Amino acid sequence: MRRLGFGLALTLAAWPVWADTVSTFKLDNGMDVVVIEDHRAPVVVHMVWYKIGAADETPGHSGIAHFLEHLMFQGTKDVAPGDLSKIVAAQGGSDNAFTTLDYTAYFQRVAADRLGLVMKLESDRMHNLNLTEDDVTTERKVILDERTERTDSNPGALLSEQMAAAQYMNHPYGIPVIGWRHEMEALSRQDALDFYHANYAPNNAILVVAGDVKPDDVLALAKQYYGPIPPSDAIKPRIRPTEPPQLAERRLVLADARVAQPYVVRSYLATERNPGDQRQAAAISLLAELLGGSGTTSVLAKALQFDTQRAVYASASYDGVSVDADTFSLVVVPVPGESLADAEKAMDEVVAKFMKDGVNAADFARIKTQVMAAQIYARDNTQGLAREYGAALAVGLSVKDVQDWPDLLQSITADEVMAAAKLVLNRHNAVTGYLTTEEAAQ
Amino acid sequence: MRRLGFGLALTLAAWPVWADTVSTFKLDNGMDVVVIEDHRAPVVVHMVWYKIGAADETPGHSGIAHFLEHLMFQGTKDVAPGDLSKIVAAQGGSDNAFTTLDYTAYFQRVAADRLGLVMKLESDRMHNLNLTEDDVTTERKVILDERTERTDSNPGALLSEQMAAAQYMNHPYGIPVIGWRHEMEALSRQDALDFYHANYAPNNAILVVAGDVKPDDVLALAKQYYGPIPPSDAIKPRIRPTEPPQLAERRLVLADARVAQPYVVRSYLATERNPGDQRQAAAISLLAELLGGSGTTSVLAKALQFDTQRAVYASASYDGVSVDADTFSLVVVPVPGESLADAEKAMDEVVAKFMKDGVNAADFARIKTQVMAAQIYARDNTQGLAREYGAALAVGLSVKDVQDWPDLLQSITADEVMAAAKLVLNRHNAVTGYLTTEEAAQ
Repeated sequence: MRRLGFGLALTLAAWPVWADTVSTFKLDNGMDVVVIEDHRAPVVVHMVWYKIGAADETPGHSGIAHFLEHLMFQGTKDVAPGDLSKIVAAQGGSDNAFTTLDYTAYFQRVAADRLGLVMKLESDRMHNLNLTEDDVTTERKVILDERTERTDSNPGALLSEQMAAAQYMNHPYGIPVIGWRHEMEALSRQDALDFYHANYAPNNAILVVAGDVKPDDVLALAKQYYGPIPPSDAIKPRIRPTEPPQLAERRLVLADARVAQPYVVRSYLATERNPGDQRQAAAISLLAELLGGSGTTSVLAKALQFDTQRAVYASASYDGVSVDADTFSLVVVPVPGESLADAEKAMDEVVAKFMKDGVNAADFARIKTQVMAAQIYARDNTQGLAREYGAALAVGLSVKDVQDWPDLLQSITADEVMAAAKLVLNRHNAVTGYLTTEEAAQ
Repeated sequence: MRRLGFGLALTLAAWPVWADTVSTFKLDNGMDVVVIEDHRAPVVVHMVWYKIGAADETPGHSGIAHFLEHLMFQGTKDVAPGDLSKIVAAQGGSDNAFTTLDYTAYFQRVAADRLGLVMKLESDRMHNLNLTEDDVTTERKVILDERTERTDSNPGALLSEQMAAAQYMNHPYGIPVIGWRHEMEALSRQDALDFYHANYAPNNAILVVAGDVKPDDVLALAKQYYGPIPPSDAIKPRIRPTEPPQLAERRLVLADARVAQPYVVRSYLATERNPGDQRQAAAISLLAELLGGSGTTSVLAKALQFDTQRAVYASASYDGVSVDADTFSLVVVPVPGESLADAEKAMDEVVAKFMKDGVNAADFARIKTQVMAAQIYARDNTQGLAREYGAALAVGLSVKDVQDWPDLLQSITADEVMAAAKLVLNRHNAVTGYLTTEEAAQ
């Protein structure tokens, strides 16, 4: 927290506090290595990121990327099922994994002198995975339960799923990471092994090590553990179907008796951060902050939560760390008694006024300071930093793109934000969804 | 016309006029042969149907099935580009081809004694296609022009395309047969050859010959021309991704300055005719006829065009000859001055009243007679009959399924129609589209 205060005070005056201590290497087998030094505590975060996600699945086999992530804990010739996590825990560490549309990552957090141990375990399962039919049957039940809990029991998650399917007419981002239930039920051991052999290899992976380590020591360990794994010639460039022109906004209403808090959400297609070409994405990021960033001073929150008190919550969001076009979203949760149609109308009026008035200079300065503070915050969290670099590299960005991003955000002009707004806020590219308790217009 | 009058008079009394003179064979290489005898005129229709369509394309390569259909006229070692059609025309015949989501078919109509000639030509291009880069470049321009003319210049076609993409969340029926323009522009010679080699083979094809021929003679010719072509072991079962539960109706408005006649269209997912299991599809077919079949006596036409004069046109449609779930559609074209929202409301009120009142017995009897008459009409057209058998077999139905269909339609009860209506007219599975001249709700 001391560092944070320091950072906040310095924001505009003393910019060069910036550069993370990052070293990069590439092993002979094509594996990228990124080392982020942070010597404040004797711990290390070890992550392996595979440049493969749910959007790379074979049609009809949705969920296989995530299913394989689960099955990667089933062990190898040398490590019994479940033992990897037990070994890490026994050393006082923790481990986990996650799958997104674009990548799959495995990580452990351990004492710095245990780095070799986790590398040994992680490199082993990169090419020696053992899978029995029983493992697959058991774990399939687990992912189905996960879908029940996280998606099917959650009307908001169901709305997101239906909206994504309507948002993408051609691109696989319309298919959920967890998978469609009927396809998950059919995922087989062979599907998992096929996906594993086609995609898990050092030349499709990024090693990120962050913490109390020296780059040369990490490189030596990486060479020892990951170096002997042969590259795969099955790795193909990630070329996914792209969107045709979207000519008509899609609208849908998800009515579910379990809904406690109705809301309206609008998503628009929005360009992603591209290598060496992040300026438009940076403008869209600032647009999201201005219109509906965290806190209560955004354009939407001010107009709907405070000035007119028509909403209990209003926000905008955009990420942009993706291989292909992402979405820019607006959400308004109206106060009880306010209809979703009126809430949407109010939201659109606020956006229309913003498009007419343009960026308020004081708001813009404040937002830029907030964004910078957030970047500095993030830099205080080694694990978060490791995730930021890992995710960026896994979608094709470079270390330089990550490091350029904070300055880029500060350099964006109000005109660029308005140009981005004109481009993104195109209703033809939009999906509008209502989450409600009642059947509407049946 | 004499035959038709005869048929109509006989409809209810003398049913067994029915059986088409159909013979079937299978060649040793797996090619199905269907012969439909019609000795009234000395002509023959020769068709080869490949069980491959746009829904079987590799994602990102939309339009390749249709593109290959065009390229199949580019010739072989023995036949120069364009010569096949010239040879057929020189014999007084005609030829053409078509591609749908589920199949691709080539046909010629010639004097009956020229059957061997067209078999020689068609069997040649089944396995000897020659394609130069120049052919591909030239023909790619042709299909792009075709897209411009048929789709991009036609707001109704664009609406259909956008609606299909919204209708299917996971299944490739959401992708247009002609292809998305940006993907068509990238289709290469290699894409065409890959699709050709993977899918064009006798064991993926159905030969339909209809006209003044004897089955044994057709079989002998088929053995001579198609018999020597080896089967392919690359032919895989057509397993496409299927739909997850659709939880929310999707709505969209396509506004285009070129629209002369605004209308509202609603499409619902509807089960297709399945081998040995066509009863539900038959009930849906009768539902379409009752609600909005051709003519002016349907429930929708009567209510909207005549009783209230709110629409200039109202109809319902369903085909059901498809590999996977098809759509059931309602269309209302309102009179000038009536809004699309009011037209939709009126349409829904008519449907709701139908659901409440049930099937009118007199209407049902009349519809069944009309359906039977249409079947008898169809049987008077040899080429139409060849298409009916070819399409049915190409989507996996059998000759028996085709022959059972007319009786099956007659056997459907009013209760079955209402049960089908309850199943199909589920707004969660629906897309509602407005075609209009004005930007609505921007």
